[in-house]
Amino acid sequence: MNSKIKYDYSYMKSELISDQGFTQNELNEISDQLIKFRERTFVDKSGRPGYMRLPEDMETLAIVEKLAVKYSSKFSTLLVLGIGGSDLGARAVIAALNNPDSGMNVEFLGANTDPDEIKSVLRKIDLKKTAINVISKSGDTIETMSTFIYIRDLLIKEVGYESHKEHIVATTDKSKGTLKTISDKEGYDTLVVPDDVGGRFSVLSPVGLFPIQCAGNNCAELLKGALELSESLIGFDKDKLHKTEIFAALHYLGYLKRSQKIHILIPYSFRLKEFGFWFRQLWAESLGKKDSNLGDEIYVGPTPVAALGATDQHSQFQLYYFGPFDKIITFIDVEDPGHDAFIPDSFPEIDGVSYMSGLSFNKIIRTELAASSMALTERKRANGRLVLPEISAFTIGQLIQFFEITTSYMGELLSINAYDQPGVELGKQNMYALFDRSGFHTRKIELENLTKNFGTDVVE
Amino acid sequence: MNSKIKYDYSYMKSELISDQGFTQNELNEISDQLIKFRERTFVDKSGRPGYMRLPEDMETLAIVEKLAVKYSSKFSTLLVLGIGGSDLGARAVIAALNNPDSGMNVEFLGANTDPDEIKSVLRKIDLKKTAINVISKSGDTIETMSTFIYIRDLLIKEVGYESHKEHIVATTDKSKGTLKTISDKEGYDTLVVPDDVGGRFSVLSPVGLFPIQCAGNNCAELLKGALELSESLIGFDKDKLHKTEIFAALHYLGYLKRSQKIHILIPYSFRLKEFGFWFRQLWAESLGKKDSNLGDEIYVGPTPVAALGATDQHSQFQLYYFGPFDKIITFIDVEDPGHDAFIPDSFPEIDGVSYMSGLSFNKIIRTELAASSMALTERKRANGRLVLPEISAFTIGQLIQFFEITTSYMGELLSINAYDQPGVELGKQNMYALFDRSGFHTRKIELENLTKNFGTDVVE
Repeated sequence: MNSKIKYDYSYMKSELISDQGFTQNELNEISDQLIKFRERTFVDKSGRPGYMRLPEDMETLAIVEKLAVKYSSKFSTLLVLGIGGSDLGARAVIAALNNPDSGMNVEFLGANTDPDEIKSVLRKIDLKKTAINVISKSGDTIETMSTFIYIRDLLIKEVGYESHKEHIVATTDKSKGTLKTISDKEGYDTLVVPDDVGGRFSVLSPVGLFPIQCAGNNCAELLKGALELSESLIGFDKDKLHKTEIFAALHYLGYLKRSQKIHILIPYSFRLKEFGFWFRQLWAESLGKKDSNLGDEIYVGPTPVAALGATDQHSQFQLYYFGPFDKIITFIDVEDPGHDAFIPDSFPEIDGVSYMSGLSFNKIIRTELAASSMALTERKRANGRLVLPEISAFTIGQLIQFFEITTSYMGELLSINAYDQPGVELGKQNMYALFDRSGFHTRKIELENLTKNFGTDVVE
Repeated sequence: MNSKIKYDYSYMKSELISDQGFTQNELNEISDQLIKFRERTFVDKSGRPGYMRLPEDMETLAIVEKLAVKYSSKFSTLLVLGIGGSDLGARAVIAALNNPDSGMNVEFLGANTDPDEIKSVLRKIDLKKTAINVISKSGDTIETMSTFIYIRDLLIKEVGYESHKEHIVATTDKSKGTLKTISDKEGYDTLVVPDDVGGRFSVLSPVGLFPIQCAGNNCAELLKGALELSESLIGFDKDKLHKTEIFAALHYLGYLKRSQKIHILIPYSFRLKEFGFWFRQLWAESLGKKDSNLGDEIYVGPTPVAALGATDQHSQFQLYYFGPFDKIITFIDVEDPGHDAFIPDSFPEIDGVSYMSGLSFNKIIRTELAASSMALTERKRANGRLVLPEISAFTIGQLIQFFEITTSYMGELLSINAYDQPGVELGKQNMYALFDRSGFHTRKIELENLTKNFGTDVVE
């Protein structure tokens, strides 16, 4: 079986959707830039972004696998404490691979500092049987660290100070930072967040791999899938565009030359729902930028939206069909779901349902996708389709790498740094200021000045 | 305690966010239109939209309460089969009221026709102890009906044909349609979907009330909250704008006079996460329209986005702070979460975490909201805040009514019909055509013609 993912962009063309679609000329105009970027960024290994190294790192994989065996043999649940890039990747992959009968039960606390969320997760688990994976590169992330300190305290009350150390794996900086300091002091097992990989690109580092492996999945296959996609770029024809390049080019043209500012990812698979939230961070933090690489203020960035089919046909498609022409919709179509079920012929005499009998659910959901795609096309709405032959570690690895590479191309086309996140820093610094952390007093005064001359307008 | 919800629009004003904010003049210019609409649509009961009647309907409430008692006493789980408006409202309210210790366990199947989702829900429940609430006004909705027929068949295999009838409550049209026909034939209990209330406005009808009541919640209080909000419009000062009117006015001005095309709702509460998905349908289906009331093609409609705080600070806020000026962000701030927890002083000597000790999680999450709001304001990003004194049936009832009424005002300002959904019909008809349902052959040919002259462009 051919297990490569495919990109179908038939319904993105001007021949079908008129001036909402791209023309071959437009694509040709940026092809050179894309192919040059490919050569210097992906083919020439010296120019590669850090995340490209991860699928080749068999040494790290072996460390993760070994630690996963150790914790799986001692505990039944893994509680992951992380936020944003320290959380969304593993969540997405574990939900996609949906392997409830093997491995540990993995729970995520999102480190959202919501007392209700903490209470509701703690109801579900027995701390005595639970290992905790706390993830923060700096150890300064207030959400993650406050939750960790709180739960560590409960754990110590439950199992005693000495034993608590056996429950904890910290994924953090290799040599410095608050969480590294705490881990060294307490003697926790640690895994390393690489220096050259930002949180949102870190799912194939120990950040994502450890929880994924603990959940009973095959990380070796996941990395193999990612590597398959990376390597397909290296030998690729220098006169043609690769699927990642076409995807980026069409989203760039839609964003900049038309008014397609909203990029919707809509898998028609329950198992891929969380994948949309991983994509949403990747696209927003990488492409939402104030400054261009030339130093101009450009305030750029498509707004990514995570949707789910067929459900959202009964929620969002009214807007997608008839609202403004400001969206590109990408379906994810799963050819073989692995298992299926059929509609029995229970009411042969009732016209409103009799035509369904004998249909399989997979046939219905894939036809829903096709019908929606046609309806969008008929109304001149840009829409494409990523095709997964099946959902497996190998195809999910490809899909992750597809979007990370596409993000790099988007950064090149938009002329921005796709790898920094000054806005996240800004939010953190405001928190430190408002909580009187030492060193942030000036910022506190700035925030107070910002609002002090204005009454608040509140209506009841 | 004052338990009314409030709207804080301080950071929507031009004084704070310059040309991204509204001016008093702009607001004055549309005040008359809003107040006239209030008088003829909400004060004069003859002009009211159907959903306004629901909070007063004590007769229906009594029917729902009685049926909930009957099923709660016989079964431990309620499985709800519905999609879109037949699903999102009850999901949102049950998650918000978060009442795991009383009432039935309520599971939703979303009727997504995803074999994985069906399998994963069926793993969790014992059909012998499960009541099924199938919800479809017409009974033609393929997702809901195919799932129902499949699960009904499993149920019959489990408990026998005669007994299966005692497990099923159908919420459907009062007198016609496929599901009504099936229910009459089989002798199922039924509840009525009112004729004058569309799916996305139906949460306070039996569509939402039955699952909400079965989950152990107080629907009488929920309706009381909604009524409180409705009635606050009736006696309201004719020279002032009501909070629902201000909310609509500012979103309309942002949408039409600026480029704020994306409307983000971001509760800082795990329990309100699902509420965002209910809002997202309400806003998209009601306001995403091709035709104006005057018959012009306007292709209008803000894109609603459901986000969650503080989590999305580590995913979306980079884009919100530094991306395009195309968004309005509405926070939902919960003053009193009902319970809380405090960070222990575990590492007094470590600067990166010591400042957290003694803080409560509620203090942290509310400060996160304030810090984000200030950071947005500093960068001239329109943002407002809905304040809930607490999360209760009474405040959630208000919040539902707040958004439904606001939607009506948005419809008036945008000059569209906020109550129809031709796009949902379109999608359904394509499905019938692709599945050769009788009567849809012409449509099938149209769809085939749409794509037959074009090769597909698929890259591997």
